[in-house]
Amino acid sequence: RTQRTHAVFAPTSRYPFPVTRHQGGIEALFRDSMATKGVIVERPVIPTAIELSNGEPDLENPKTYPVKVTLKHLDSSKGESEIVHAKFVLGSDGAHSWVRKAFNIPMDGDQTDSIWGVVEIIPETDFPDLRNWAIIQSHHGTLMNIPREGDLASAERLMECAAKILQPFTVKQVGEAEWWTVYMIGQRVARSCSVQDRVFIAGDACHTHSPKAGQGMNATWKIAMNPRGSSTLETSSKFDRKWSKLFRNKPQNEENEDGASQAEFVRMLETSHGFMSGTAIRYEPSAIVDPRHQSCASKLIVGERMLPHDFLCAANAVLINIHDMLPSDTRFKILVFLGDISVEATMDRARALAMRMDAPEGFLRRFGQGAHEKVFDVLSICATKNDKMDFTDVPKFFRSHWSKVLLDDIEMSGRGGGGGYEAYGIDPAEGAIVVVRPDGYVGMVAPFEHLDDISGYFATFMLERRSA
Amino acid sequence: RTQRTHAVFAPTSRYPFPVTRHQGGIEALFRDSMATKGVIVERPVIPTAIELSNGEPDLENPKTYPVKVTLKHLDSSKGESEIVHAKFVLGSDGAHSWVRKAFNIPMDGDQTDSIWGVVEIIPETDFPDLRNWAIIQSHHGTLMNIPREGDLASAERLMECAAKILQPFTVKQVGEAEWWTVYMIGQRVARSCSVQDRVFIAGDACHTHSPKAGQGMNATWKIAMNPRGSSTLETSSKFDRKWSKLFRNKPQNEENEDGASQAEFVRMLETSHGFMSGTAIRYEPSAIVDPRHQSCASKLIVGERMLPHDFLCAANAVLINIHDMLPSDTRFKILVFLGDISVEATMDRARALAMRMDAPEGFLRRFGQGAHEKVFDVLSICATKNDKMDFTDVPKFFRSHWSKVLLDDIEMSGRGGGGGYEAYGIDPAEGAIVVVRPDGYVGMVAPFEHLDDISGYFATFMLERRSA
Repeated sequence: RTQRTHAVFAPTSRYPFPVTRHQGGIEALFRDSMATKGVIVERPVIPTAIELSNGEPDLENPKTYPVKVTLKHLDSSKGESEIVHAKFVLGSDGAHSWVRKAFNIPMDGDQTDSIWGVVEIIPETDFPDLRNWAIIQSHHGTLMNIPREGDLASAERLMECAAKILQPFTVKQVGEAEWWTVYMIGQRVARSCSVQDRVFIAGDACHTHSPKAGQGMNATWKIAMNPRGSSTLETSSKFDRKWSKLFRNKPQNEENEDGASQAEFVRMLETSHGFMSGTAIRYEPSAIVDPRHQSCASKLIVGERMLPHDFLCAANAVLINIHDMLPSDTRFKILVFLGDISVEATMDRARALAMRMDAPEGFLRRFGQGAHEKVFDVLSICATKNDKMDFTDVPKFFRSHWSKVLLDDIEMSGRGGGGGYEAYGIDPAEGAIVVVRPDGYVGMVAPFEHLDDISGYFATFMLERRSA
Repeated sequence: RTQRTHAVFAPTSRYPFPVTRHQGGIEALFRDSMATKGVIVERPVIPTAIELSNGEPDLENPKTYPVKVTLKHLDSSKGESEIVHAKFVLGSDGAHSWVRKAFNIPMDGDQTDSIWGVVEIIPETDFPDLRNWAIIQSHHGTLMNIPREGDLASAERLMECAAKILQPFTVKQVGEAEWWTVYMIGQRVARSCSVQDRVFIAGDACHTHSPKAGQGMNATWKIAMNPRGSSTLETSSKFDRKWSKLFRNKPQNEENEDGASQAEFVRMLETSHGFMSGTAIRYEPSAIVDPRHQSCASKLIVGERMLPHDFLCAANAVLINIHDMLPSDTRFKILVFLGDISVEATMDRARALAMRMDAPEGFLRRFGQGAHEKVFDVLSICATKNDKMDFTDVPKFFRSHWSKVLLDDIEMSGRGGGGGYEAYGIDPAEGAIVVVRPDGYVGMVAPFEHLDDISGYFATFMLERRSA
């Protein structure tokens, strides 16, 4: 063993460890969750024809249904057909995508000369790292060990090959392999991922690369989160080329100076973790990413996701992670860091801020769409110690509900909390207002004195429609 | 406010906080869990007759069915009857217990002159502690505020009364009360809780007292855990008398020196928390509680429950609380604290211990009932740092599965672990063997040199039946 290191380098992650779950299990989670909202995936159904309207005015209007898809129900004895008129069609139909072929979208790129094998087994072995993510370099090839649910391990390459690489340790398979495959690593990217912004392809349909523990499955939430498109695809394919080269190479040693060094592996892992875990995503400045007042919350990077941290709920002194206060419920979260309200001058500023935010010309009412509590959720976070305040001390505007007031203090039993202002780079004497987008990303931070800039931020993309 | 204090004083608790859940919710958890094992509670069914066999030999034999119960199914239009022959009958049928009356068991004790009211409401109030457990003493009476799920609070006493007590704060009820009741606190205990050890009464059927946030519901697991009977009932009724006196009294002040002092309340809470949370239960020495070698694990009190603590799983460096390794699966858990096996002398002792425990005359095989892994679960806990060992270094006897080896070390990201040997009072140079009973209580601790005493422990209550 040359080195032990973190399986995931994501120091700002609330859950800084990887968890593996097989694809069927993840699909079941989605299916069950969708079913509670009445959304059922119909199976077995295949598309037989797809047609996109040519009329341009039709396509410009987001309320039209320009895509016509003919579906065939395979479980009907009559092979019944159905015609669906759709606003959008998303083809997540794999490397041999029917949707992609229907629109003649070419794939660019080619096969690499890497051959991968994947086998999921219960191993019987004296290899001490069988329950750790492990990369084993040898002159017989490279092996990646991924511990799985229960006793399963998924060894990437097949068993005889694995046995050679693992020498001097031994490995035997217990029972049948759960699943296995062998394939060339193909790295291809579709020339386009959409047709007229009405038909899209995603996943293997638009880019194929080697599945590293199913990281590809993150496509699902990225589609939901970022309908505007992102640079993910290109990044992914560049990353993949480096990755597969590393695995193809023999270990670096005296005879083989060009081989893959262990330091290279670790560097590659470090740079890829933010990408794989998603914590490194940063949106560039745009209408919804305004970093002009970054300095007032210097560690909450505008355009990145809100950092998780444990605070105390002021009403009951219970620890709560701020992420649990930021559900993706379509509302913008307005986090008001009030400072230490046991200091009279700070309390005066808090009261004045409440009045300005509550005023008819404040952004809350200007963009409230008739009921601002459905568009904005206001939370307040005090830098005050628990025994120095009651939550009822906070101006009423900041506590629409008892759960909306948080404290930056250590929990009574010492189990966590405290240090939040410091972790976010906010001065308790100044405070700050943090705008968190509905997707959990920081859209803007601003000092109390620049409510006008927050209004300006919302004015760029929201319709002015007042609430009472 | 005179003082803020812990809602529960249970410093050794893994979850040191109270959680409230309404009775229907808890019953649903049990019903759902039982249903997965095929056990369904039939409703509506009432008993109409019960008869206990008089033949004594019949009662001595645990395999007989001496109780005959006639049941009537109310939902059958014909009012069908059914006769059940039972080994045991448990009457958990409330204060007016039909089972108790059927066997003419008298209740001893009487009403107190305390009147309690309970009302579950969504309050509208400026009382800052509405989301905390709070006891409010006033000249209008005493009020206990118990925050509940969602926005519910359950204020013990009714609303007008509550409003008076809460002055100068105000409280109003939003919507209908969820539930309310008024009653005299009756404190009565059945003269006997069983008939011939075949028919039992439990809960309100054998002892009535005031329900303090439903603490009575703990009866369920106490029955399951301790079929031998315990001193719970008597303790409970003594406690209840003190408790109700405290609530009846007016606050102590200059005019009322005999009143209830706030210090008295806190003392009462402190002494009752171990009782209410269950963490203070200690079984006296008996056949299954042998404290003779207490000093080798000085802080794991023999007769008390095993202390929770986070260790590292040696195979994958993941944190795990030792409680999660001690499910109530009817097996005795043999925790072998091996010490620091990176020290050669300690490793030698570990190897020698493995050989002796694995020997035909060891307790494992002597009392193995033909398959010792179904009777005993052996875990090993090393005082070695994670980077100083592989789990495969531990003698094979101590690792029937990769998950069975734990380390007393801090997790890589610093999220916990370490300090376990110290918390348990075990010397890493000496090690210790800890026998945890199937119910999670420490039955015995012993140094490596006294395997014979562990054999003696099991010999007092287990049949010798060898395993291979």
